[in-house]
Amino acid sequence: MKLAMIGLGRMGAGIARRLMEHGHEIVGYDRDAEAVKKLEADGAIGAASLEEVLEKLERPRIFWVMLPAGAPTEETVAKLAGILEEGDIVIDGGNTFYKDDIRRAKACAAKGLHYVDVGTSGGVWGLQRGFCMMIGGEKAVVDGLDPIFEALAPGMGQIARTPGRECDDPRPEKGYIHAGPAGAGHFVKMVHNGIEYGLMAAYAEGFDVLKGKASEKLPEEERFDLNLPDIAEVWRRGSVISSWLLDLCSIGLAKDGQLEQFTGNVADSGEGHWTIDAAMEEAVPAYVLSAALFARYRSRVEHTFGDKLLSAMRFGFGGHVEMPQ
Amino acid sequence: MKLAMIGLGRMGAGIARRLMEHGHEIVGYDRDAEAVKKLEADGAIGAASLEEVLEKLERPRIFWVMLPAGAPTEETVAKLAGILEEGDIVIDGGNTFYKDDIRRAKACAAKGLHYVDVGTSGGVWGLQRGFCMMIGGEKAVVDGLDPIFEALAPGMGQIARTPGRECDDPRPEKGYIHAGPAGAGHFVKMVHNGIEYGLMAAYAEGFDVLKGKASEKLPEEERFDLNLPDIAEVWRRGSVISSWLLDLCSIGLAKDGQLEQFTGNVADSGEGHWTIDAAMEEAVPAYVLSAALFARYRSRVEHTFGDKLLSAMRFGFGGHVEMPQ
Amino acid sequence: MKLAMIGLGRMGAGIARRLMEHGHEIVGYDRDAEAVKKLEADGAIGAASLEEVLEKLERPRIFWVMLPAGAPTEETVAKLAGILEEGDIVIDGGNTFYKDDIRRAKACAAKGLHYVDVGTSGGVWGLQRGFCMMIGGEKAVVDGLDPIFEALAPGMGQIARTPGRECDDPRPEKGYIHAGPAGAGHFVKMVHNGIEYGLMAAYAEGFDVLKGKASEKLPEEERFDLNLPDIAEVWRRGSVISSWLLDLCSIGLAKDGQLEQFTGNVADSGEGHWTIDAAMEEAVPAYVLSAALFARYRSRVEHTFGDKLLSAMRFGFGGHVEMPQ
Amino acid sequence: MKLAMIGLGRMGAGIARRLMEHGHEIVGYDRDAEAVKKLEADGAIGAASLEEVLEKLERPRIFWVMLPAGAPTEETVAKLAGILEEGDIVIDGGNTFYKDDIRRAKACAAKGLHYVDVGTSGGVWGLQRGFCMMIGGEKAVVDGLDPIFEALAPGMGQIARTPGRECDDPRPEKGYIHAGPAGAGHFVKMVHNGIEYGLMAAYAEGFDVLKGKASEKLPEEERFDLNLPDIAEVWRRGSVISSWLLDLCSIGLAKDGQLEQFTGNVADSGEGHWTIDAAMEEAVPAYVLSAALFARYRSRVEHTFGDKLLSAMRFGFGGHVEMPQ
Repeated sequence: MKLAMIGLGRMGAGIARRLMEHGHEIVGYDRDAEAVKKLEADGAIGAASLEEVLEKLERPRIFWVMLPAGAPTEETVAKLAGILEEGDIVIDGGNTFYKDDIRRAKACAAKGLHYVDVGTSGGVWGLQRGFCMMIGGEKAVVDGLDPIFEALAPGMGQIARTPGRECDDPRPEKGYIHAGPAGAGHFVKMVHNGIEYGLMAAYAEGFDVLKGKASEKLPEEERFDLNLPDIAEVWRRGSVISSWLLDLCSIGLAKDGQLEQFTGNVADSGEGHWTIDAAMEEAVPAYVLSAALFARYRSRVEHTFGDKLLSAMRFGFGGHVEMPQ
Repeated sequence: MKLAMIGLGRMGAGIARRLMEHGHEIVGYDRDAEAVKKLEADGAIGAASLEEVLEKLERPRIFWVMLPAGAPTEETVAKLAGILEEGDIVIDGGNTFYKDDIRRAKACAAKGLHYVDVGTSGGVWGLQRGFCMMIGGEKAVVDGLDPIFEALAPGMGQIARTPGRECDDPRPEKGYIHAGPAGAGHFVKMVHNGIEYGLMAAYAEGFDVLKGKASEKLPEEERFDLNLPDIAEVWRRGSVISSWLLDLCSIGLAKDGQLEQFTGNVADSGEGHWTIDAAMEEAVPAYVLSAALFARYRSRVEHTFGDKLLSAMRFGFGGHVEMPQ
Repeated sequence: MKLAMIGLGRMGAGIARRLMEHGHEIVGYDRDAEAVKKLEADGAIGAASLEEVLEKLERPRIFWVMLPAGAPTEETVAKLAGILEEGDIVIDGGNTFYKDDIRRAKACAAKGLHYVDVGTSGGVWGLQRGFCMMIGGEKAVVDGLDPIFEALAPGMGQIARTPGRECDDPRPEKGYIHAGPAGAGHFVKMVHNGIEYGLMAAYAEGFDVLKGKASEKLPEEERFDLNLPDIAEVWRRGSVISSWLLDLCSIGLAKDGQLEQFTGNVADSGEGHWTIDAAMEEAVPAYVLSAALFARYRSRVEHTFGDKLLSAMRFGFGGHVEMPQ
Repeated sequence: MKLAMIGLGRMGAGIARRLMEHGHEIVGYDRDAEAVKKLEADGAIGAASLEEVLEKLERPRIFWVMLPAGAPTEETVAKLAGILEEGDIVIDGGNTFYKDDIRRAKACAAKGLHYVDVGTSGGVWGLQRGFCMMIGGEKAVVDGLDPIFEALAPGMGQIARTPGRECDDPRPEKGYIHAGPAGAGHFVKMVHNGIEYGLMAAYAEGFDVLKGKASEKLPEEERFDLNLPDIAEVWRRGSVISSWLLDLCSIGLAKDGQLEQFTGNVADSGEGHWTIDAAMEEAVPAYVLSAALFARYRSRVEHTFGDKLLSAMRFGFGGHVEMPQ
């Protein structure tokens, strides 16, 4: 198939290359002309503007937008909605909030355009092993784009089939799903990231407990000076908690068991926050996922104002002087 | 009544004085001879050793031990158990772990001695307004000590009666209870402190949200620069969340709305920890009380090792560079 | 002053009465003509429509809207915005989401109208002891309405002054504050409720631990059968955790120590949810306040789907059969 | 090597068989003579008592105890400590609390015996793919037992090496580690299980949010009826959250997307509880791991007493009637 890739950063360029390797044609555009040139060198058709992209595609045109969520994607989709023609397709492959998808899909539909949202997982590693994709949009449109998704997906690979699974839809086993109408793709991806925060926090707390076991606060006979890189490694091999995130822990700890290159200020993208929003809208308890999010907020301040208020109360009722750190 | 006060720190001396004001006789002892002299000046009988205290009391002797929990109390109770005689009474007024009370009471009983545990709340303010006391021990013994407890308790004071309350036991309305056998007093006091941690954390988080509303991360039209001292004050007056802890927040914030004299390293005594232990032994979920405890641990380190592991994983899957603080 | 009260439910009627007792004139309106008649009997001027209310007031007219948050308030404010004239004032005394206030205030301002939001705490008890009020709006307008707010507030009463407090603004000590521009009143009230959830959950978990101490799962010598009504009562008297919410616990437990009239399905109004929203927007950790909210969600389902998934995983890795309840 | 297997339940018999397949000799004992006979049929030497086992081994004798943690293991180890001779080795392969290991190792050492603790992960699946083992004990003793551990471990298999890992010790890559002195093996296994609880809870909450998205409480245009079996499947394939536990979710959901065979009463073994104990002793915040544990407690009661107290307070301040479920 022939499609446009709008946004040729690491992810956009990687996806474009993977598609070309699978025989698809790419018209590439980026504000940065350098990025366009680079992709041309790999066989893409370059373009200097959205309008030029438009001319270089046949109807129905397919635009894959791979830009930062929020304003950049919003503006580009709005601009495309203004210049595309009936039947054309806009794919948002970024990290968009699913309610924005629902809104945009409605606006696109009013103009006869189709909107498809694709949440991708796999990080930079996905460029090699393929992307796990969660897709939202109209059935016929998503089905029509299948050659693209199949090319991007990891395929069955070495991963064993789930015993007992019977299903007519072959896509999940190849690493992509059509989750539902527009927004459903990013919604599932959002929850995926919410879970990811929770999993990461579970490992983080666990390794914290392992490391703390050497603390001099403990009675000497109950202290252990544990080898964290070895523990991460052994858990990868046959234990119940083996996972790809544990593989990453093992890689990080193998390099430096003290992780001294990291300060521990942990960013969060919107998905963790939005997952808690969704949980609250549904009245679903999300103790673990919220705690994982809050740990990231907490990691970014030295002391909260609340900590100081605790000290002020303690001073108030007992004349307690604060502990030295 | 006549009784010994062992340990004449701020709390021990205060309790002794309050008892003398109510007509009780005190034999005072402390390792620090200066503290003994001071109490003698206020009318107490001083003593230079536990043995001397013993001689200055009549049987059944009453010893109120008011020492730091752990080794100091343990050693003194053990020593007393060695020199006291049948029918004598040991009262532990400190912050002892209730399982230690159960064990000590058993050891005392084997020698014909009586052991009573008294958990007290009220902080340094209790010296003026009386102590809220939670008492464990044998019924006859606790009943016999009633004049002491009544003298220490705040009494009904200005606090309204609970509508609908019908009860033969007048003690709870005067501010003290006989909670059960040895250990029950400190157990109830322990849960009291566990709750206290939770309440304090609720205020701390709430004021944090109020303060954060001025953050420049927010859209300008949604920012409020709120007056926290005024808010604490107004909530004291007719709101659903008025409490003595809120009074302390108000005092602290009135002095300095930024709480700059505090760093925010918040200590914890054992009771919060033990409350979670008890919850786990009972299989009772304690999300809030545990989170309140963990916030104190967290306040005392700049970054956890877990935070660094989160950064290491993020670096691993996406090449994410850490956020600047 | 003369003002309209729109919505004469328990709260609206109560506020109207309190205002009349303090010499203010009320024009009362409610969809339910019965409610209007009742208030007329107490001295109010009745009206059969918003338009009739309009005629019975002099400019600048003051409308206090006391309706359920959401659609009822939204529609009434919209209608008022259509019929009021420059300089008129709309007060929203309900439980509105503060971002709705910001939006409405902007819309009102465009028409020369003034919008004031008032968050009130005190529950049904406030009708007697006065309401704690948190007010948002333009300074001149809020100042001009002061006679109304002062009449509704509890005043200083018996509550001691905060030591060390120095402040030119006398209002907080009387039980009301001007928190900031439109929306600030409801924002502060929202966080107030968020804190309330946290405080309530702390007591709930603590009493759960007390009650669980009688569990037969525990070794017999470590079991206590505690008297919860007495414990609630004693904590009201001189303890660090005394509060108005504890008074309510004591009332409830005095009536029935087993609380058998309650099933334990706990509702939540929007404020707890919105407080977590605000915390996330500000990147403030809110472990305790969110856990308190989630406990309410959890109380309303017998089992979550997540619980079943845990069982499915346990079955998967170990053939574990589920525990009987 | 030749060793005794004490306890021939599913795990003990499985381990014994795997050892025999690798050329080791097993003397098997179980209270249940049937179990002994079965293992004899597979080539083991049966014994009818610990004393008989003793006779059938040469010094230094090796006893692998594979019994339920707590009393059964405690009693057997105590009995062995009474009959073994200097240089003999006791291996505890169960789920023992690590402080019991520390105590037992000391008692064994006093008699010239060696105590080794082995925590194993892998569940019933480990019988086929090998066990991930975490071992505590004296270096020389653990080294001497290496042929046994190597036979039980999964070996490197298909699992890729951790990039950047450089290590002289080949054992972690084969799936077992010598974690430290006695107790260290079970300590690492305990934290492993604590993490497992956290990971499981993260998936559980996430799938709960996915399922809740079909809720009729939501506006119709924001509702999605998601296919959970397909989502679990797709996440196994290239996503950041792929893991063995996710494989189990996928298996469970493939069988029945509603999980109707499960009620959702989730048991916990001691390790989750002990992990929180350890975190508290070390003053390490463990928000996520504790919340995961509490969710299991909560799953096993219909309503907590705390829920009822919340309702009682709500009734108290606002006359709120409870929500219907």
